[in-house]
Amino acid sequence: MSSHYGKRLKISIFGQSHSPAIGVSIDGLPAGLALDLDELQTFLRRRAPGQSDISTPRAEDDAPEILSGLAGGLTCGAPLAAIIRNTDAQSADYHEIRDRPRPSHADYAAHVKFGGHHDAAGGGHFSGRLTAPLCLAGGICLQILRGHGIDICAHILRIGGAEDGAFDPAGVSARDFEAVRGHPLPVIRREAGEAMRLQILDARDKGDSVGGIVECAAIGLPAGLGDPMFDGVENRVAGLVFGIPAVKGLEFGSGFAAAGRRGAENNDGFYMDGDNIRTRTNHSGGILGGITSGMPVIFRAAFKPTPSIGLEQESVSLSRKENARLKVKGRHDPCIVPRAVPVVEAAAAVALYDAYLDR
Amino acid sequence: MSSHYGKRLKISIFGQSHSPAIGVSIDGLPAGLALDLDELQTFLRRRAPGQSDISTPRAEDDAPEILSGLAGGLTCGAPLAAIIRNTDAQSADYHEIRDRPRPSHADYAAHVKFGGHHDAAGGGHFSGRLTAPLCLAGGICLQILRGHGIDICAHILRIGGAEDGAFDPAGVSARDFEAVRGHPLPVIRREAGEAMRLQILDARDKGDSVGGIVECAAIGLPAGLGDPMFDGVENRVAGLVFGIPAVKGLEFGSGFAAAGRRGAENNDGFYMDGDNIRTRTNHSGGILGGITSGMPVIFRAAFKPTPSIGLEQESVSLSRKENARLKVKGRHDPCIVPRAVPVVEAAAAVALYDAYLDR
Amino acid sequence: MSSHYGKRLKISIFGQSHSPAIGVSIDGLPAGLALDLDELQTFLRRRAPGQSDISTPRAEDDAPEILSGLAGGLTCGAPLAAIIRNTDAQSADYHEIRDRPRPSHADYAAHVKFGGHHDAAGGGHFSGRLTAPLCLAGGICLQILRGHGIDICAHILRIGGAEDGAFDPAGVSARDFEAVRGHPLPVIRREAGEAMRLQILDARDKGDSVGGIVECAAIGLPAGLGDPMFDGVENRVAGLVFGIPAVKGLEFGSGFAAAGRRGAENNDGFYMDGDNIRTRTNHSGGILGGITSGMPVIFRAAFKPTPSIGLEQESVSLSRKENARLKVKGRHDPCIVPRAVPVVEAAAAVALYDAYLDR
Amino acid sequence: MSSHYGKRLKISIFGQSHSPAIGVSIDGLPAGLALDLDELQTFLRRRAPGQSDISTPRAEDDAPEILSGLAGGLTCGAPLAAIIRNTDAQSADYHEIRDRPRPSHADYAAHVKFGGHHDAAGGGHFSGRLTAPLCLAGGICLQILRGHGIDICAHILRIGGAEDGAFDPAGVSARDFEAVRGHPLPVIRREAGEAMRLQILDARDKGDSVGGIVECAAIGLPAGLGDPMFDGVENRVAGLVFGIPAVKGLEFGSGFAAAGRRGAENNDGFYMDGDNIRTRTNHSGGILGGITSGMPVIFRAAFKPTPSIGLEQESVSLSRKENARLKVKGRHDPCIVPRAVPVVEAAAAVALYDAYLDR
Repeated sequence: MSSHYGKRLKISIFGQSHSPAIGVSIDGLPAGLALDLDELQTFLRRRAPGQSDISTPRAEDDAPEILSGLAGGLTCGAPLAAIIRNTDAQSADYHEIRDRPRPSHADYAAHVKFGGHHDAAGGGHFSGRLTAPLCLAGGICLQILRGHGIDICAHILRIGGAEDGAFDPAGVSARDFEAVRGHPLPVIRREAGEAMRLQILDARDKGDSVGGIVECAAIGLPAGLGDPMFDGVENRVAGLVFGIPAVKGLEFGSGFAAAGRRGAENNDGFYMDGDNIRTRTNHSGGILGGITSGMPVIFRAAFKPTPSIGLEQESVSLSRKENARLKVKGRHDPCIVPRAVPVVEAAAAVALYDAYLDR
Repeated sequence: MSSHYGKRLKISIFGQSHSPAIGVSIDGLPAGLALDLDELQTFLRRRAPGQSDISTPRAEDDAPEILSGLAGGLTCGAPLAAIIRNTDAQSADYHEIRDRPRPSHADYAAHVKFGGHHDAAGGGHFSGRLTAPLCLAGGICLQILRGHGIDICAHILRIGGAEDGAFDPAGVSARDFEAVRGHPLPVIRREAGEAMRLQILDARDKGDSVGGIVECAAIGLPAGLGDPMFDGVENRVAGLVFGIPAVKGLEFGSGFAAAGRRGAENNDGFYMDGDNIRTRTNHSGGILGGITSGMPVIFRAAFKPTPSIGLEQESVSLSRKENARLKVKGRHDPCIVPRAVPVVEAAAAVALYDAYLDR
Repeated sequence: MSSHYGKRLKISIFGQSHSPAIGVSIDGLPAGLALDLDELQTFLRRRAPGQSDISTPRAEDDAPEILSGLAGGLTCGAPLAAIIRNTDAQSADYHEIRDRPRPSHADYAAHVKFGGHHDAAGGGHFSGRLTAPLCLAGGICLQILRGHGIDICAHILRIGGAEDGAFDPAGVSARDFEAVRGHPLPVIRREAGEAMRLQILDARDKGDSVGGIVECAAIGLPAGLGDPMFDGVENRVAGLVFGIPAVKGLEFGSGFAAAGRRGAENNDGFYMDGDNIRTRTNHSGGILGGITSGMPVIFRAAFKPTPSIGLEQESVSLSRKENARLKVKGRHDPCIVPRAVPVVEAAAAVALYDAYLDR
Repeated sequence: MSSHYGKRLKISIFGQSHSPAIGVSIDGLPAGLALDLDELQTFLRRRAPGQSDISTPRAEDDAPEILSGLAGGLTCGAPLAAIIRNTDAQSADYHEIRDRPRPSHADYAAHVKFGGHHDAAGGGHFSGRLTAPLCLAGGICLQILRGHGIDICAHILRIGGAEDGAFDPAGVSARDFEAVRGHPLPVIRREAGEAMRLQILDARDKGDSVGGIVECAAIGLPAGLGDPMFDGVENRVAGLVFGIPAVKGLEFGSGFAAAGRRGAENNDGFYMDGDNIRTRTNHSGGILGGITSGMPVIFRAAFKPTPSIGLEQESVSLSRKENARLKVKGRHDPCIVPRAVPVVEAAAAVALYDAYLDR
């Protein structure tokens, strides 16, 4: 079992990197909503590769076909299913890795789990390509959330040694989102973007890859979303974000930094802002006891460096049970982080819209 | 909805800090298992307060009563339900906070979510006390996992400014677990424990609190547990760990540190160790594509400082809609982290045993 | 896995016939509701044995203890857990059946499923006693539904050869419910009740048992509850009703009778009743495409005769793998149907309130 | 929420009668299985219309396209998604019913539930057409079950006034299945089939429709499948079967007939059949306490007459809030039952294979 998520909004993702198609079924959307398919396409394009010198040259136009769920252009209450055809797959690249698992890829674990029958081509169901249907679902949720005055924006906080500034947790606003969206790389400080680009190009030139951190904020959320214990907003967001390949860490608000702090410093005191209750600081990342406080929800996801690198690496031959060397072929991103930004937004949108419906 | 977790092993937690009892129903345990109730009691006692100068003086002996699920001393296939009576509750302490939410507690969010009807006494269903039934479930899972050659151990990695060493991700062993268990505070380096104790006492003396990090390792896990995408081991562990009050961050393997690295440095090369396939390093924390690799599973959870502090803080009066000052009364831990160590182990045990049953 | 039900309202039932207690955790109740515990007790008493000459003399007062979920007498948003102690268990009665499964009881199937480790005493987790916590949950849901103008009432339609009249599907009203509730046995025609009583006494006198049918109606439901396909109201009700021991059939509206009809006869034509849309007939049992139509929901559940009879029966010795004779000891109802009436109401109440919350 | 089913095998169905495609995602299939796609196509063809004088002339070749889940012709552990294009839709037929709901169809209930935004064309998501993806999933499960020695076969027990004989509950065998499969209509007694055909033609000639009963048997099931209470085999089968449009009743074993019986008559005594434990009779329908007994599982589903009839009927105008007359246009089956036979088999196959995986 693997690709289902959600309580009120159930998404079910299917597909492999090189299967005829990938797709998603979204069950639980309210009826009567108009979706802006051009805007959805634009959202998907942010994730698509082949757009600049810092991503894989694999061309995917990621044009979704909506198979069901609409009637007369509006959602009709039935599950919305959409697929994207896989057209540019070069499966021949992947024959070797059936026997020699790529370090830090899913190959070996999948080999054991599925008794050698997993689809190794392009990473199969474990491929980053499967984030396209997640973006499809997330892009739709984002449109609906915006209709409720809620917006979500992520930026690259870090790539390798290059760091951007962070969102102001208590003050992040629509204006900040606009600024991020106006830059070629989604960052707050344009010069941070340039430094990141250099990190990526340097890694690429060395046949290597580099990791990074994406920070995401959601504004306009009402207080009271989420549930105690295992259905808290943190748990819900984590349930999706750890489903994004390469994510190895997740923190909310002050996160790991809070571990070094005293309570007097970390607590978010309340005050009246007119008739609204707000907190002066937002070390809690907008979540108290698993439930939104009405302050911006802020989280950060850590991405490991793309495990596919051009350098020769240590592996083993599964058939011969002996050590082996491996040079990963195929076309890969030297850094997945820039393309992961809309994926993180999509994950947040799905998790938060599901919590919104579940309120 | 809140207190359910699991796919093959369903746990359902109930209770409030000051309700007649707290408890858990565990559905899906195999039949015919002998549980060591003394060992379970010992496990629970590690979480119980009132044991040293660094924890709350609230006395809870946390003696569970097993209501169902056993026949002739063995599990019988029916849900195992167990409760712990709440005996030392002093609800009078909590009248003020119904109107003045405590900063960085769940009070305000719960007030909004439940229309003012939440149980404010002792934090209600949001109280750290609810980790006792989680420990009950986790203690049982841990016993069963040990019967399969799997063990789990956590230690305090950090409290405020005091840091312990980390487990060796690729080499952590039963011997390391024994060492941690032999210390008064669960740490690898005894002197780190002493520094932590000083941090806690200093915070306490100032009416303040302090946060920390718990690191947890699971050894002996077979490769192939967990599922792709949203049912990966990371997602499953996160689903429980973010249900522990005060957790604001979670990372697996290198986690956030991987964001600053190159792939050549972060990838875990495979090699044959006799007939076994292992990796030289374990930056992946034992999880590839959401599935265990057979290497130790390693994760770290960041705890914010206990929000209950003795110092006066900013709050608001919910009824009068005006700013107000608040001094939290009641008995509280200046640092929740030492008592959280078995809770993290319990969460890991439940998540990993559920994944084990779901293989 | 076994004892969980529900989407918005999750109930989790635990206990065995002779375990220290049986109980239920109900997660998802709205906060701020006042429960009438006396009325709940009265509802439970209708299911309790030992009340007349036609039921088992086992005395159970079924007094529930509420462990959590209330604050200041109102629901507080946390799971409501309640238990009932098992006090009158006579486990010695059941030693023989560990080796000689009782015909048409769960003994043999449970023996295989749980490798011989199931709790055989009193039927263990399969006992009709486990309908008490279901009544607890259902009694609470019923109180809440009544607050929304929805009421549920069941009556005995048949016991052995004695039949009551049926509810008028399109016209059943609160007055009909009152009439049923005013009779010693819950029937529409008092003389039918007397005939049923004779059937039961005759079966008892012969050391035998007898089956029956319970018909249940829900009135006041708004149109639009339930979901297409697998979450339809029929599916939801079936998910609970087939969990009541001895139920072997379930039909909605005309049910099996519709199989012999023509469409022109079976279709329910619409008409305007003032501003309301109603149907002239209600062969659909108030459900169209899985969704309530606003007409009364009507269903019937068929109960097999109590499998525990005093007559000698064919069994086998599990240990010796040979044929064996068995005389069931213990105290049993010659007919479970009268006590099943509130259980069916409870099942309907839980299913319909869950659908109501999920609208 | 609507179209999800299953615990270990999750199926998610999408599509509307006239949407671009209908389909299903099946998550949880074991890896490494070879599927016989020709056999699957043959299974689907049994459900397809346009094949004889007793079904709708709408032509659907129901040729599925498998989008994912296979690698090298074998299942690969990733979700198997398959779609069927809708090609012969004539949406113009359905304009009138947006305002005038068809009696005993889902139109009115869907109108209320989805605020008038449901897809009315061809019944939308409520259409019998959606049983095609269910057959797709069921056809796959059936192939796998057969590999484990389990087979499933349904026959028409009744159409209107014409009745077939029933399977022998304790003795039904593969030979019986073959006989049913060899007849033009799936019946046990060929002459019953001819009588049924006359019933259908008579209804068709009168512009009317007729209902019926399908009986289904599963043989070769091991004892021990299913779980107590709400996850029993009855509950699991009901969860799917009540999702088939027009099903209004379901009974297992003796079902409703058991209500009129005494225990001595209805109980199934055990005996040793060589080393196997069997029961002389099988009034339980192969299920005890929700768990398979090793005897054949037998159930019957009652189908109401197709609500679409050519005769004029009473309806209302939703816009004008007044009574109205309606003559349903479009192409419809005068009796859905013959085409429902493989659908019932598919539902049984999915439910039983899910229970099999969940053992």
